[in-house]
Amino acid sequence: MEKILCGVDIGGTKLSAGLIRKDGTIIEKITAYDHRGKPEDQIVEQISGTVRRLLGSNGLDEDDLEGIGVGFPGHVRYRDGVTITSSNLKGFKGYPLKESLQKNFSVHVKLDNDANAQAYCELRYGAGRGYNDLIFLTISTGIGAGIILERKVYRGITGTAGEFGHTIVDPRSDLVCTCGNKGCLMGCACGLALPYHFRKKIEQGSTTTLELPPDFSWEKVDGQFVSRGAAAGDPLCTSIVMECADYIGIGVYNIFQVFNPPLIILGGGLCNLGDMYMKRIREKFYELARDMIFDPIAIVESEAGSDAGLIGAAALLLE
Amino acid sequence: MEKILCGVDIGGTKLSAGLIRKDGTIIEKITAYDHRGKPEDQIVEQISGTVRRLLGSNGLDEDDLEGIGVGFPGHVRYRDGVTITSSNLKGFKGYPLKESLQKNFSVHVKLDNDANAQAYCELRYGAGRGYNDLIFLTISTGIGAGIILERKVYRGITGTAGEFGHTIVDPRSDLVCTCGNKGCLMGCACGLALPYHFRKKIEQGSTTTLELPPDFSWEKVDGQFVSRGAAAGDPLCTSIVMECADYIGIGVYNIFQVFNPPLIILGGGLCNLGDMYMKRIREKFYELARDMIFDPIAIVESEAGSDAGLIGAAALLLE
Repeated sequence: MEKILCGVDIGGTKLSAGLIRKDGTIIEKITAYDHRGKPEDQIVEQISGTVRRLLGSNGLDEDDLEGIGVGFPGHVRYRDGVTITSSNLKGFKGYPLKESLQKNFSVHVKLDNDANAQAYCELRYGAGRGYNDLIFLTISTGIGAGIILERKVYRGITGTAGEFGHTIVDPRSDLVCTCGNKGCLMGCACGLALPYHFRKKIEQGSTTTLELPPDFSWEKVDGQFVSRGAAAGDPLCTSIVMECADYIGIGVYNIFQVFNPPLIILGGGLCNLGDMYMKRIREKFYELARDMIFDPIAIVESEAGSDAGLIGAAALLLE
Repeated sequence: MEKILCGVDIGGTKLSAGLIRKDGTIIEKITAYDHRGKPEDQIVEQISGTVRRLLGSNGLDEDDLEGIGVGFPGHVRYRDGVTITSSNLKGFKGYPLKESLQKNFSVHVKLDNDANAQAYCELRYGAGRGYNDLIFLTISTGIGAGIILERKVYRGITGTAGEFGHTIVDPRSDLVCTCGNKGCLMGCACGLALPYHFRKKIEQGSTTTLELPPDFSWEKVDGQFVSRGAAAGDPLCTSIVMECADYIGIGVYNIFQVFNPPLIILGGGLCNLGDMYMKRIREKFYELARDMIFDPIAIVESEAGSDAGLIGAAALLLE
C-alpha cells in the first residue's frame, strides 16, 4: 500500500492534524482550538495523541505513514528542528520540537516554518503546479513567505530565509513593526498596520463615511473592517487599501528584481481586501518593472485554500 | 595535460581576455581600451583575435582549452546567450553574443553577467572560499550582485536575478536611478548618486570645507572626491559617506532577511570610501538585525581584486 502522509499545522488559534494522501487530498483531519497557552510539552502530547487517534480511527499503523510533517508559526532552526521564536504562541523559544515529537514516533518527523509549508503546498497542489521556482507571499496579520527553487524550499543557513516581511521598504515611515524596526514591509502593510493607517489618516484630517459603532476603538480596524469600508465606497478605507497595496507592489517588485522568478503567489487574509487591492498591487508592480521584464512573470492568488499549511507540512515529507 | 580556462571580461572602459589556470592564477592576459563604441560584430572579432593571440603566444591550441567564459556588463538572457541591455556599452540590445563567438571556436563558449562572474570568483578564489552560499554586492558607478547557492550561480528564469541594486529601499526619495525609478538602492547609493547628494546638501545649506577647483561642476563629485573629502574631515563629504553607507546597510539587511546567508561580500570601487564607510554599513546592519541573527553571518570585503571579472568568467566554465 502507498504510504500516507501525516501533517500537523500549529497555528496561533488552531491546531490541526491530518492524514493526507500523496495527491494532496485529506483523508481525515482533526482541528483543536485549545492548545494556545499550554506548555510546549503538553502541546507535543496533544499532537501525538491526535496523530494516534487519526491512525486508530482509520485502522492504520505508524508503519503506514511516510512520516509526520509539522508546520510551525515562527522561526525554526531547520537543521535540528528547534523552534527559535513565535509571535503567535507562548514559549517555544529554543524548544526542541522535532526531537520531542520524534520521541513519540518511530517514523520520521520533519519540522518547518508554516509559510514554507504553504509555499510547498502551492507548488505541488495549488497555483504553482507545473513550476519549478516560485515565491509565495502570505499577507495576513503578519507577512510570511516561502521560497521554492528547483522544486525545493530554500531555507538559508538557519532556516529563516524568505523574511520579505522584514525587509525595509520605507525607512522614513514611522510605522514600527513587531520586530522593532520602522519601515519594513510587514510593519507597513500587514493586518497589524491597519489600525495605525486608519488612525493616522483620521488625525491628518481625513474623514470616513462609515458609522463607527459606539464601542469603536482603533484595534477594531482589521482586514474585514477595511474591506467592508472600501466596498461601501468609504474614501478613507479605500485609501488604506491602496496604500497597503502600493507597499505590497513594492515588495513584489523587489522579489522580482532579486529572484527573477516565473511566478509570485499571493496568499493570506488580506488578499480578501478585494479586487481593488489585487489590481493595485499588480499596477504598482508593472509601474516599477516596466521595460525590465524580459520573460513572462505571473502574479497570482493562492489556490491551495485554508488547509494549505496542513497539506503542505505533510507534503514536505516528499520534498 | 590539465585543460586551461579562457576568460573574457567586457567592461565599459576595458576589454580583457586571459588564459587562466584552474587554480585561478593568470597565465597571460591582454587588456584593450579601444572596443567602446565599436559595432557588436567587431567586438566579437576583437575578442576572437585576442583569444587566438593568447593561444599562439603560449604555444596552445583551442583543444587545450576547457572553454571560453565571457562576462558581460549588463543583462544577459542566460539560456541562449543573448545580451539584453547594457548601460556601459553601446548597442548589444538583443545581440546573440554567445552564438557569434561560438561560430569562431570549437570549444564551449559560456556567457554570463559580469557580477555573477565576480561572485563566482569570490567563491572559488576569494573571500568566499570554504562557503557554499554567498551573496556578492558590488558598489561602484552602479550596483551589481551575484547570488551563489550551493556553489552555483542562481540566475532566475531570464538570467537577471540578483538585481538588489534596483530593489526599492526608499520610495520617498527623489533620487532617480538610470532604471527610471525613484528610491532604488542603486539610485540612492551608487557612484552616480554622489553628485546629487553633494548638490542637495549644498542647496540645503550644508557647507564644505573643501576648496573647490575653478572648473568644479557637480559631475566631478565621484568616489575619489568624496573619499578624499571625508578623509580630510569635510563634514559634507562625511555626511554623504554615512548616508550612502546607511542605504547599503539597509540593502545588506534586506539580503540577510531574504537569503539568511552565511556570507555577504561587498566589492566595487565605493568600498574605497574608507573605514568609516564599511564600519557604518556594518553598524546599520546590526542596528536593524539585532536579535534576529540566529547563526553567524560574515559581512566582508571582496578579496578577488581587479581581475575578479576576468578570472570569474573563466572559472564559470567549472560551475
